[in-house]
Amino acid sequence: MSEVIETEINELVDLILDDYKKDRFIDRVNNFNQIDKDIIKDIIYKLRQIFLPGFFSNKKYHTYTAKNNLSMLLEDVMYNLEKQIVIVLQYDTNFKDSHIENIYEEAHRISLEFFKKIPMIREYLETDLEAFYDGDPAAYCKDEIVFSYPGLFAIMVNRVAHELHLLGVPLIPRIMTEYAHSRTGIDIHPGAKLGKYFFIDHGTGIVIGETTEIGNNVKIYQGVTLGALSTRGGQSLKSKKRHPTIEDNVTIYSGASILGGDTVIGHDVVIGGNAFITKSIPAGTKVSIKQQELKMN
Amino acid sequence: MSEVIETEINELVDLILDDYKKDRFIDRVNNFNQIDKDIIKDIIYKLRQIFLPGFFSNKKYHTYTAKNNLSMLLEDVMYNLEKQIVIVLQYDTNFKDSHIENIYEEAHRISLEFFKKIPMIREYLETDLEAFYDGDPAAYCKDEIVFSYPGLFAIMVNRVAHELHLLGVPLIPRIMTEYAHSRTGIDIHPGAKLGKYFFIDHGTGIVIGETTEIGNNVKIYQGVTLGALSTRGGQSLKSKKRHPTIEDNVTIYSGASILGGDTVIGHDVVIGGNAFITKSIPAGTKVSIKQQELKMN
Amino acid sequence: MSEVIETEINELVDLILDDYKKDRFIDRVNNFNQIDKDIIKDIIYKLRQIFLPGFFSNKKYHTYTAKNNLSMLLEDVMYNLEKQIVIVLQYDTNFKDSHIENIYEEAHRISLEFFKKIPMIREYLETDLEAFYDGDPAAYCKDEIVFSYPGLFAIMVNRVAHELHLLGVPLIPRIMTEYAHSRTGIDIHPGAKLGKYFFIDHGTGIVIGETTEIGNNVKIYQGVTLGALSTRGGQSLKSKKRHPTIEDNVTIYSGASILGGDTVIGHDVVIGGNAFITKSIPAGTKVSIKQQELKMN
Repeated sequence: MSEVIETEINELVDLILDDYKKDRFIDRVNNFNQIDKDIIKDIIYKLRQIFLPGFFSNKKYHTYTAKNNLSMLLEDVMYNLEKQIVIVLQYDTNFKDSHIENIYEEAHRISLEFFKKIPMIREYLETDLEAFYDGDPAAYCKDEIVFSYPGLFAIMVNRVAHELHLLGVPLIPRIMTEYAHSRTGIDIHPGAKLGKYFFIDHGTGIVIGETTEIGNNVKIYQGVTLGALSTRGGQSLKSKKRHPTIEDNVTIYSGASILGGDTVIGHDVVIGGNAFITKSIPAGTKVSIKQQELKMN
Repeated sequence: MSEVIETEINELVDLILDDYKKDRFIDRVNNFNQIDKDIIKDIIYKLRQIFLPGFFSNKKYHTYTAKNNLSMLLEDVMYNLEKQIVIVLQYDTNFKDSHIENIYEEAHRISLEFFKKIPMIREYLETDLEAFYDGDPAAYCKDEIVFSYPGLFAIMVNRVAHELHLLGVPLIPRIMTEYAHSRTGIDIHPGAKLGKYFFIDHGTGIVIGETTEIGNNVKIYQGVTLGALSTRGGQSLKSKKRHPTIEDNVTIYSGASILGGDTVIGHDVVIGGNAFITKSIPAGTKVSIKQQELKMN
Repeated sequence: MSEVIETEINELVDLILDDYKKDRFIDRVNNFNQIDKDIIKDIIYKLRQIFLPGFFSNKKYHTYTAKNNLSMLLEDVMYNLEKQIVIVLQYDTNFKDSHIENIYEEAHRISLEFFKKIPMIREYLETDLEAFYDGDPAAYCKDEIVFSYPGLFAIMVNRVAHELHLLGVPLIPRIMTEYAHSRTGIDIHPGAKLGKYFFIDHGTGIVIGETTEIGNNVKIYQGVTLGALSTRGGQSLKSKKRHPTIEDNVTIYSGASILGGDTVIGHDVVIGGNAFITKSIPAGTKVSIKQQELKMN
């Protein structure tokens, strides 16, 4: 490296180091105990191996029994999940002043509680898979859905993230669902409650907000928003019910928006494509936008 | 590992192993002969190297002639593609009881047929590239399109997947197009037929259903759905024509939906943004939504 | 490998080599001096480490001081960025006939200019982060935004790409923003000018065209298009102002489209969901689509 370039680099380093001294949020320098998104992503894929042992295998090692394989996966996920939970619990004001031993204990308690939910998550997953197969004439077989449908992946990640969210884990659930969002274009907040037999077709552009509640046997297509009426209030609206409630057996076609925390879509409703709904819809109604007037010339 | 944790893990393992015994679809444990999505992804990128030899090179090794490089790539793709085809043919009821030798032979026959299509796929690709360049004032040069436009990637993957689909390969074509969907937000079913000079701009949110037919010189923008009118029928609609036919020289602006298997968009039609079309449109028509009434206050 | 297969492969290789001789754009064989998208992606993530030193660390090595870490990162990014700039400058007609030494010098000059912008980019980033936190009741804390919000990532990549674009670097800026588009579903052209305190919520499906100008304190939701009225003109429209101007304190809700280079959205305007705007809107106006007529049965 020439001396000139060395001087240039030193000047740039000093310029940026000075900029780090401005004491803004972004100027934090210590990166000790940092959340590791790659580990969280790895946890998702290993949980998928646990949920669907016959479809996704561990390529690194071959083990001879389902039991050995499962023990190994479980230990691995538990170790890594607890380490990440220890890190994020330190963001929680309840734990800010706790002794580190207490945080370790709490992380372990949470991870055990989470693992006990696996049979329940798997039960839901089986119902989702049935709903996908029954609902989509383009599905060749259930294996195709497991291997390729983005909607099933997004729902699976939400079911995991939602349990961690209920157990009071900060940050990790949202990192999980945003990873699924990145892969699928489907943005489901970890707070959203999803019923059984949930079917998402195509999925890109779907947004399901934090306080949404969805019943059983609901179908949602690409571009649907289940959102808030307005977010003008910003942080003052935190944890208020801002997103709609969708009852059982509802179908919502592509591009529809359903907004507001008081909006209830009754059971067996069908919402047509591109409908913009801000009020409750009584059970059994078919809603569609009036034939658009088109100009033709 | 402490004894307490060992006991906890053993209990969790038993809980989940018990759950695997419920004999549901998801309870399959044997993961012998599993489809490998990473290999299918690798096949896509190596095919791209074959299609566009001057743009994407193999970083692992440097070879000195185009011929050596091509031979190596071709052998590699052939070997891996055939292995995956052998696995998926076992999902096909026609091959369920076939002797494994016959499946190997069929996989080899299919892969040879596929490779013979490469000049045709490349010819289409050249026309697409021209359409992208001519259609987009923001395109700096054709290299920029090759290196960065998601639409070209999605179309290329569809052209590959469509040929494999026509050759009767299950699962792999859809895994390919869903990979492209994940990367681009553009969801084109392998069954869809795309004409020459096909231009997709931006692309996020586009859905092109299984039985769609698209002519030459068609332009489609972000958020366009070429879909089915209803999927209530589920699996009973399998392989029926459910998606529209788009004739030559049609432009479809962002957010438009064109639905239904009997819907034919005639040649030289322009469909305006956000139009919702469920009936055929005669050739040469310009369709736009009537000026939206806006409330201003 | 059996002789039969060897013959088959040789025949396929000859078939494809023949196809390479057709002298079309795609038939370029020489891949010397190729742009490397993986390196450009790596540059993005290393710049993020420089911008946010306390949030994203280098996992490969642990260094003991912020200064050492920064020097190392900076040298690495500078080396790789200059190498890529040297390659792409050869696409620029101004440099086609330049001596390679001049291109190296120009690449170094550009990279120095770029690095001097880092404090300014970081200042903008801090304002964006504040806007995200203040605007979203679902944000748990600012760390969650840094680690998981796709909108912040897309804006950060645009701010980098925009500076390189202003410095006259071809191709690389667009490869950067298309990488962000792939990860987030948010498609912002490097030419677009973004003000301070810019907030994008959810984001999937957003398109912000090349000649868009956006003021301070603007909020944009998923599915919004800031686009051109028509692209019929193709390459003849190159570098003309085709996309709208958005003044300060504007909110644009999901699914709205604002089109045209003469369209100015005045300050403090609120554009309601799904509005389709092709004309200027005076400052302070609240625009919403007239209550959709819905058919209920």
